[in-house]
Amino acid sequence: MTTLVNHRFTLAARPVGLPTPTDFAYEEQPVRDPGEGELLVKVRYISLDPAMRGWMNDVRSYVPPIKLGEVFRAIAIGDVVASSDPAFTPGDHVTGMFGVQEYATIAAKDVTKVPPIAALPVFLSTLGMPGLTAYFGLLEVGKPQPGETVVVSGAAGAVGAVVGQIAKIKGCRAVGIAGGPEKCAYLKEIGYDAAIDYKAGDVGAALREHCPYGINVFFDNVGGDILDAALARLAMRARVVICGAISQYNTTERIAGPSNYLSLLVHRASMTGMVVMDYAARYAEAVAEMAGWMAAGKLLSREDIVRGLETFPVTLNKLFAGENHGKLLLEV
Amino acid sequence: MTTLVNHRFTLAARPVGLPTPTDFAYEEQPVRDPGEGELLVKVRYISLDPAMRGWMNDVRSYVPPIKLGEVFRAIAIGDVVASSDPAFTPGDHVTGMFGVQEYATIAAKDVTKVPPIAALPVFLSTLGMPGLTAYFGLLEVGKPQPGETVVVSGAAGAVGAVVGQIAKIKGCRAVGIAGGPEKCAYLKEIGYDAAIDYKAGDVGAALREHCPYGINVFFDNVGGDILDAALARLAMRARVVICGAISQYNTTERIAGPSNYLSLLVHRASMTGMVVMDYAARYAEAVAEMAGWMAAGKLLSREDIVRGLETFPVTLNKLFAGENHGKLLLEV
Repeated sequence: MTTLVNHRFTLAARPVGLPTPTDFAYEEQPVRDPGEGELLVKVRYISLDPAMRGWMNDVRSYVPPIKLGEVFRAIAIGDVVASSDPAFTPGDHVTGMFGVQEYATIAAKDVTKVPPIAALPVFLSTLGMPGLTAYFGLLEVGKPQPGETVVVSGAAGAVGAVVGQIAKIKGCRAVGIAGGPEKCAYLKEIGYDAAIDYKAGDVGAALREHCPYGINVFFDNVGGDILDAALARLAMRARVVICGAISQYNTTERIAGPSNYLSLLVHRASMTGMVVMDYAARYAEAVAEMAGWMAAGKLLSREDIVRGLETFPVTLNKLFAGENHGKLLLEV
Repeated sequence: MTTLVNHRFTLAARPVGLPTPTDFAYEEQPVRDPGEGELLVKVRYISLDPAMRGWMNDVRSYVPPIKLGEVFRAIAIGDVVASSDPAFTPGDHVTGMFGVQEYATIAAKDVTKVPPIAALPVFLSTLGMPGLTAYFGLLEVGKPQPGETVVVSGAAGAVGAVVGQIAKIKGCRAVGIAGGPEKCAYLKEIGYDAAIDYKAGDVGAALREHCPYGINVFFDNVGGDILDAALARLAMRARVVICGAISQYNTTERIAGPSNYLSLLVHRASMTGMVVMDYAARYAEAVAEMAGWMAAGKLLSREDIVRGLETFPVTLNKLFAGENHGKLLLEV
C-alpha cells in the first residue's frame, strides 16, 4: 500500500473574480493507509460544479469555505481499493466528498455505495447532486402543475437539463434558456418545447413569445439580467426557484440584484432559495424514481468528461465560460 | 340637490420622479344626482397611500393606472347624503373608492357600510386597508411563530405600526426600522421591542445587535438598502414579505434590486409579494379580530390628519418625505 502516490489539488489562494491556475496547488503525497473504519478509494470521476466557486470565498454560506492548503472539496466517484470496514470490500463503487485527488482515505460512514443501475458518471450527474437538485428544486419548491409553463435558465447545464425533462414528465410546457445554437439544439433534443439563445437576442422578447400566458415556475441557475427578464414575465402566483447565480459568482463588484423584484408583489409571486442537502433523507427515493424515468427513456443524461486530474484549474473555468455540454466531469 | 358643488382633483400629467402640483388639476363641478342604485356620498376623510404613486404611472400593475383627466383614485370614508338604494339611508357612514373629491356619486354595490365600533378615521387606518394589509401580509405570508423575530421596515407607517403590534400579540420579538428619533420613540410606545433609526447609522449593524438569532420574518415596505441589510441577516427558512418599496417609487432610474438576494438561497428563505385585495373575502373576519384587539388595548391606532382637500398634492408628498406620523389622511 505505502508505495501508492497521491496527486491532489489544494486551495492556494482565494481568487478575486475568475479563478486562475495560481489559486490552486498541485501536490504529490504518499497515500495514507486507511485506519479503523476507513476506506481507501481510487477516485475515477470528479464532479466540477459552479458551487465550487463559492467555496473558494472566505464568507459565511451554506457550507464552510475550503481552507487554504486544504484539498479542494469535490464530490466524486471511485472504487474501494482497501477497506477497514466490514461493510465495504475492494472493488465496490462508492461516491462521497473525495476531493480533487487520485486517492481518498476517508471514513466509511461518509461514503455511499453506488448501485449497479447506471454508468458511474451518471451518479455524478442525473442520478447525483445535479439531478437531485433539479428534482427537489422543481418538485418541492417550484411545485409545477400540469399545463403550467416552466422556464429554466442554464437549461443545458447539469441541473437545467434535468429540470426541463422532469417538467415535461409532469405535463408542463418547458422553455429553456441557454447560450448558443448548439446548446439550444440540445434542449430541443431532450424535449424542451422552446429554447431561447440568450446570446442571440432579447431574452425578454423571446419570453413574451414563448410564454404567452406568463411564467408559472422560473428555475434560476444564472441570476443577473436573465433573472430580471423572467421576473418581468411572471404569471400570477408564480414560483421562482433560486438554485444558483452563475453569472454573478466571479463578479468583483456588488452582485446585481433583480431590479424587477417588485413583479413578485404585482403577481403575488414568491422567490425561494433551495439547497439540495436539505433533502438528503429522500435522495434514495428520488434516485429510484429518476432511474425509472431513465430506463423508460423519458430522462436523458449527458456528461462532458474531460480526462486528466492535472487539467482541473482550466477545466473548472469551462463552467464559467459556459463551454461545457452536459455535466462537467474530470476523469482521473 | 343640484345646487351642490363638487371640488375634486384629477390626474393632469404623469410625473417623472416626485409628483409636483402641476401633475394634478383642481376642478369645480356640479354634483351629479344619484341614479337608480346609486348613492351620493359627502366625503369626510380621504386616505393618502404610497400605492397612489404607482397608480400615476402608465404601466401594467395589480390595478390599472389612473387615466389622465380622471378623478384621482382614493379610498375614503363619508356620509350618505342621498340614496336611490333601499339598503342605504342618508346619514349612513360608508367607505369605498370615492376618489379625491368632496362628493362622490357611486353605485351602492361599490360601497360598504361602516359599523359604529370606532371613529371614522380608524376605518381608513388600522381597521382599513393598511391594517388589513398588515394583518394578512404578516399572518398569511409571513406566518410568524411564537418566539420568532419579526423585523418591519417603514415600521412607523400605517401598515408597519400594525405589523409590529400583531407580531407582539402573536408572541414574537418585534424590531422596527423607521427614520428619526420621534418615530423610533413611537415604535417603543406601541410595543416594538427595539427600534432602529435608519437615518442615525448602520442598519446592518443595528440588525446584528437586535436580531442575534437572525430575522425570521422581514416585512418590507421600503425596499432599497434596508431590504438588502435585512436579507444579509436572515435566519434559516426566513420569510420576506414584499408589501411595498416606498424608497423606489419616485426613482427616475432603474429600481435598485436587492443585491443580497442570494441570501435566500443560503438560508432557504423565501420572498413573497402580497396585495391585500386578494383577501377581500376575509376582510370582515380580520376587522372583527382587530377591533377586539383595539378594545382590549393591545392594538393602538394613530392617524395624521391634515385638513383641506386643496392641500392634496402637497400632503401626498409628506408620505415620500417620511413626514407623516401615523396613517396620513386628508380631512375634507
